[in-house]
Amino acid sequence: MKESSVSDLSIKGFKVGAAAAGMKKGGALDVCCIVSDRPCTAGAVFTRNRVVGEPVKVDRLHLRGGKHWGIVANAKISNVCTGKEGRKLAKAMCACLAEMVGCAAGEIFVASTGVIGQLPPLDKIVPAMESAFDAKSAKGWSEAARAIMTTDTRPKLAKKSVKIGTKRVSIGGIAKGSGMIHPNMATMLTFLATDAEIDKAVLQGMVSRVAERSFNCVTVDGDTSTSDTMIVLANGASGAQKVKVGTAEAQAFEEALLSVAQDLAKQIARDGEGAKHLITVNVRGARSEKAARQVAETVANSPLVKTAIAGCDANWGRIAAAAGRAGVAFSASNLRLELCGFEIFTKGEPVGFDEAALTKELEKDAVDISIQIGDGPGEATVWTCDLTHDYISINADYRT
Amino acid sequence: MKESSVSDLSIKGFKVGAAAAGMKKGGALDVCCIVSDRPCTAGAVFTRNRVVGEPVKVDRLHLRGGKHWGIVANAKISNVCTGKEGRKLAKAMCACLAEMVGCAAGEIFVASTGVIGQLPPLDKIVPAMESAFDAKSAKGWSEAARAIMTTDTRPKLAKKSVKIGTKRVSIGGIAKGSGMIHPNMATMLTFLATDAEIDKAVLQGMVSRVAERSFNCVTVDGDTSTSDTMIVLANGASGAQKVKVGTAEAQAFEEALLSVAQDLAKQIARDGEGAKHLITVNVRGARSEKAARQVAETVANSPLVKTAIAGCDANWGRIAAAAGRAGVAFSASNLRLELCGFEIFTKGEPVGFDEAALTKELEKDAVDISIQIGDGPGEATVWTCDLTHDYISINADYRT
Repeated sequence: MKESSVSDLSIKGFKVGAAAAGMKKGGALDVCCIVSDRPCTAGAVFTRNRVVGEPVKVDRLHLRGGKHWGIVANAKISNVCTGKEGRKLAKAMCACLAEMVGCAAGEIFVASTGVIGQLPPLDKIVPAMESAFDAKSAKGWSEAARAIMTTDTRPKLAKKSVKIGTKRVSIGGIAKGSGMIHPNMATMLTFLATDAEIDKAVLQGMVSRVAERSFNCVTVDGDTSTSDTMIVLANGASGAQKVKVGTAEAQAFEEALLSVAQDLAKQIARDGEGAKHLITVNVRGARSEKAARQVAETVANSPLVKTAIAGCDANWGRIAAAAGRAGVAFSASNLRLELCGFEIFTKGEPVGFDEAALTKELEKDAVDISIQIGDGPGEATVWTCDLTHDYISINADYRT
Repeated sequence: MKESSVSDLSIKGFKVGAAAAGMKKGGALDVCCIVSDRPCTAGAVFTRNRVVGEPVKVDRLHLRGGKHWGIVANAKISNVCTGKEGRKLAKAMCACLAEMVGCAAGEIFVASTGVIGQLPPLDKIVPAMESAFDAKSAKGWSEAARAIMTTDTRPKLAKKSVKIGTKRVSIGGIAKGSGMIHPNMATMLTFLATDAEIDKAVLQGMVSRVAERSFNCVTVDGDTSTSDTMIVLANGASGAQKVKVGTAEAQAFEEALLSVAQDLAKQIARDGEGAKHLITVNVRGARSEKAARQVAETVANSPLVKTAIAGCDANWGRIAAAAGRAGVAFSASNLRLELCGFEIFTKGEPVGFDEAALTKELEKDAVDISIQIGDGPGEATVWTCDLTHDYISINADYRT
């Protein structure tokens, strides 16, 4: 599958660095920081899981402040279900970066990802944070994207630019998957930055809407993480006029933000644990977008659908069965299924199709499932991946 | 894991036979019939999937009749999403058995299980039905249990007897799993028989309640089948007095029925596709039984929990994360987790435990997960299995 195509993700006024604290084996990068040269506004969304990582609790508090300078993150150990000690640690990580930046601890965001129930070792993280801070540069995004990887097989970056008034602003960032992926508010971790100037409330509205149509449309295994975090920092360094709500510029900016977020979201699905196929499930004709989404998510999370795709097997009955159990009322006589563009089932009857030709399509690395359940206006798209032996290998013994 | 312990499942007045129609490879049994020597009352529940097999549609109709003589079933091809031709076939199978029994076609139930979207070959099934009918005997249950197997690795039988007045009545039957198992009303297929005499309405009430607390508490992969069918036939051949609603006998009978159904349900979970562990998830302290069940099912269907158990890995954070995403409100500070009897997490803090000892417990073939989310009265238990490489192997290329 394709590597991310972004070679240079620099965003004016942002510097990024990464270092190894020794949590990952072989001296791999596992700590990173993203720092602005001037204060930012921020928009962010976090997991809706009832069990929430300590960094997420700290970030929710810090988001209220309205003035932000940067983000510190580590991978391998997630600081979730760690109680009071975990809370202290998350705050200490913010304080450490704040001291180097010269701002208040409440102006830093923190994120941790990895095993739940263990405490990242502060004595190793602090020196690594110092190294990451010293190493930071405008081009450091790809190292940071590597530093936040856990079972991801490749770093995930995306960038887009858009004209605001007479100047161009950039929006870019990084994300990581790749298991416990069924975001409910945002994905596991994604950090975006823009040099646009934009008020906090306007940005927050955009981030919430964009998350709903990008990261919240990805699922690898139906398991919503305790650490889902999406943060967008805006520092205004482009010198472009402020992005104002209700303008054509705001719309263009939000579309660019959505495009970057969807790009990263699809990269996450494509790199789901053990994945060999990116699967796009589109559902139309539902009573509402919510109903369409429910059907699409049920199909996208069906282990039987996902294993059939892994085996390049046109076992379409499993798609019909998954749609039928989604809890959304429809009549099977209105059901229409397409797999990789082949019509397979319509109006209660199977349609003959060229199985050899379809199997050839299924052997490609992207598979489209299209489901019509009626003639309502509701439509939704969800991205997922297939379920392979490697998912089992990765997860049956993840901690060792 | 243990084989079913029932050696003789004969129920007075019932004869059972099986034969091979050649749908399964190597001449394995794939057709069976269960016939009573006198008319029966019946209780039955069927899948709540919106996409429903043709046999289920026929059975719903036949259940209204109130007078029943038997059941015909085939495995390997499920007669689902087969349109008008499929409906004709299901009716033809009923008519064929009815002719041999000497009753009306509407007095026969039919069930098919296997690949969706294909039509079982009537020209092969009819002669096999004739052989099965000729071969039928009081002891034929274990052959029938084999005939309805698809990816099951062993037949599933259970039996119990209970005193009604001065006489004993028997309740027994067979079931099959073992993928697309997340019953919503009943499991894939289970056929029970009793020689008790019991009115249709009383029996139906019992069957509905029992299904809810047995088969509907099993999940292998969250995929509700299009063919889920539970049928209980009662022929009164014991000569015992009628089981009357509201009596101690009715309670005893319902408890015995529940016990047989739970026995079969656990056999299905234990023999889930690729399973190496039977996992019992118990949730307490919820506001309602429904809420407890929702948490238990979410944990039971979490691929991350199921792969951790497959790897005998005490990765308990995944249990907390799955409980937290179940859509049921609770505070993580009230969460208490036990794994195989080891306390692991309580009041928002992790509890130190002997990991080596716990790993030893996880290597046994039954694993208990106990979750307390508050101090409400709601409690529920769900049975599932682990998610292993074999599940992928079985399902990535099921049709070939």
